[in-house]
Amino acid sequence: MSTTSRMTDRYPSRVAPEPRILERQDPVVWGGAGDGPLTGDQLDRFDRDGVLMLQGVLDGGEVDELLVVADELASRPELRASERTIVEATSDQIRSVFEVHRLSEAIRALASDDRLAGAARQLLGSDVYIHQSRVNFKPAIHGEGFFWHSDFETWHTEDGMPAMRAVSFSVALTENFHFNGPLMVLPGSQNAYVTCVGETPDDHYKHSLRSQEIGTPDDASLHTLAERAGGEIRTQVGPAGSIAIFDCNSMHGSNSNISPFPRSNVFLVYNSVENTLVEPFSASKPRPDFIAAREFTPI
Amino acid sequence: MSTTSRMTDRYPSRVAPEPRILERQDPVVWGGAGDGPLTGDQLDRFDRDGVLMLQGVLDGGEVDELLVVADELASRPELRASERTIVEATSDQIRSVFEVHRLSEAIRALASDDRLAGAARQLLGSDVYIHQSRVNFKPAIHGEGFFWHSDFETWHTEDGMPAMRAVSFSVALTENFHFNGPLMVLPGSQNAYVTCVGETPDDHYKHSLRSQEIGTPDDASLHTLAERAGGEIRTQVGPAGSIAIFDCNSMHGSNSNISPFPRSNVFLVYNSVENTLVEPFSASKPRPDFIAAREFTPI
Repeated sequence: MSTTSRMTDRYPSRVAPEPRILERQDPVVWGGAGDGPLTGDQLDRFDRDGVLMLQGVLDGGEVDELLVVADELASRPELRASERTIVEATSDQIRSVFEVHRLSEAIRALASDDRLAGAARQLLGSDVYIHQSRVNFKPAIHGEGFFWHSDFETWHTEDGMPAMRAVSFSVALTENFHFNGPLMVLPGSQNAYVTCVGETPDDHYKHSLRSQEIGTPDDASLHTLAERAGGEIRTQVGPAGSIAIFDCNSMHGSNSNISPFPRSNVFLVYNSVENTLVEPFSASKPRPDFIAAREFTPI
Repeated sequence: MSTTSRMTDRYPSRVAPEPRILERQDPVVWGGAGDGPLTGDQLDRFDRDGVLMLQGVLDGGEVDELLVVADELASRPELRASERTIVEATSDQIRSVFEVHRLSEAIRALASDDRLAGAARQLLGSDVYIHQSRVNFKPAIHGEGFFWHSDFETWHTEDGMPAMRAVSFSVALTENFHFNGPLMVLPGSQNAYVTCVGETPDDHYKHSLRSQEIGTPDDASLHTLAERAGGEIRTQVGPAGSIAIFDCNSMHGSNSNISPFPRSNVFLVYNSVENTLVEPFSASKPRPDFIAAREFTPI
């Protein structure tokens, strides 16, 4: 970790024997109401909750085109055989395909669409680039959940993202019901950084993208965050084409899906060009570029 | 299986190499509107859907008393050490305690309460007895789901219940949210008997009560049932004290619970005294009495 010694680690994690809850040291909203497509009220809500659910942003035609792309990406044998594709822990069904904005022109166009990129620039108060992109599939009947986690905790420790100045967009390609394992966010949790216990194993991503253990919060911290949230949980429920925007440090997860309705989304992470990656803060080497881009060209 | 040769098996399961969907050969509702506390409209809906969600049947005082009982049952070391208590597959947290109407006077009183037993008699058109009772706990944060299943399939094959003339009452002791893994029922599925593949292993209950594999439906049959249900899924969401009544053959299950809110219920199964158990239809020996009562005294 000598390589990161030039930069102070304001968010140390995976280094202490006990978990702690540290306060956030960065703004949540960096831009203003006039800077992009989001209203002042929307920015205020995002600042308070760390999450904003926008219903029906994409129309049916746009969704259909992306669904075709997602299916095509999931069915390409050379992709399937590559590290870019993650399968479920207990079956061979596809869970995620990574770096999709480089594999599909339609997803590239979506990523640079002002409804998304403009909102990201507005929230982060600067130009932005794509830190990570993926298509997530939660299969019907046997879909596994994602345990609670802060993405920033992983991006900081394993990818070397210095500050909390990144934002995720989850674009629903299928209807999200209460019962097919929708995204859940603890509102307000973006302001609490839960440090995690345990050292990052080598090549951790090969396991963690299927089922994460290191880098997940302890039960007591989760209960604290839930209390701070007043017992509220925000779920992304709504028609295909809806978008959930959430802060890089928002505590989020999803339950399993035994319903006969699969759940798919395009997941795009924007990072500020003023927050580009350095060496990992708590891992022996950075993760591959297809998970954490090291080309910082603004979109 | 020679012991069951005197009774025709109208619902064969775990005997053929491929699953089939057989039509139900028994009524769903056996009594009439004048026979008990349920209205004609409620009986009609139960007949059509195989499930009826009743909000706020028990008041706060009744719920509180039962919660105390449930906690007390979960904390008794001799019960914890016995087969009556089932722990989660991946943790040592308690999932179920069985035969609770014999362990607690309050649950015995609940089981014979006319709001429940009267409705059971009305639905089944006869006197009834308790076939099974349990307290279920779905822990917060690490609560595991129950995969889809028809209770009757197990009660028939493993317990020797001849006909579809039993009904379950799930009494919520905690608020059921969309996000803490509530009970889900496929409406109309009570009329379709999905035969399962695979022989019943010896002492199957020791494993199946934690995580069931034999006796669960195949994906294709589930999709067929979901289509017949018009894509609808009924979830038991509502305040503590609500009751979900569902037919013995209703296809039901629940997702996992990573939310910070545990989910507990008292689960009571009433069987008609005209439908008492014989030898198992597809298992080498019956399950223990604490799972499937063989004392048929009307309640």
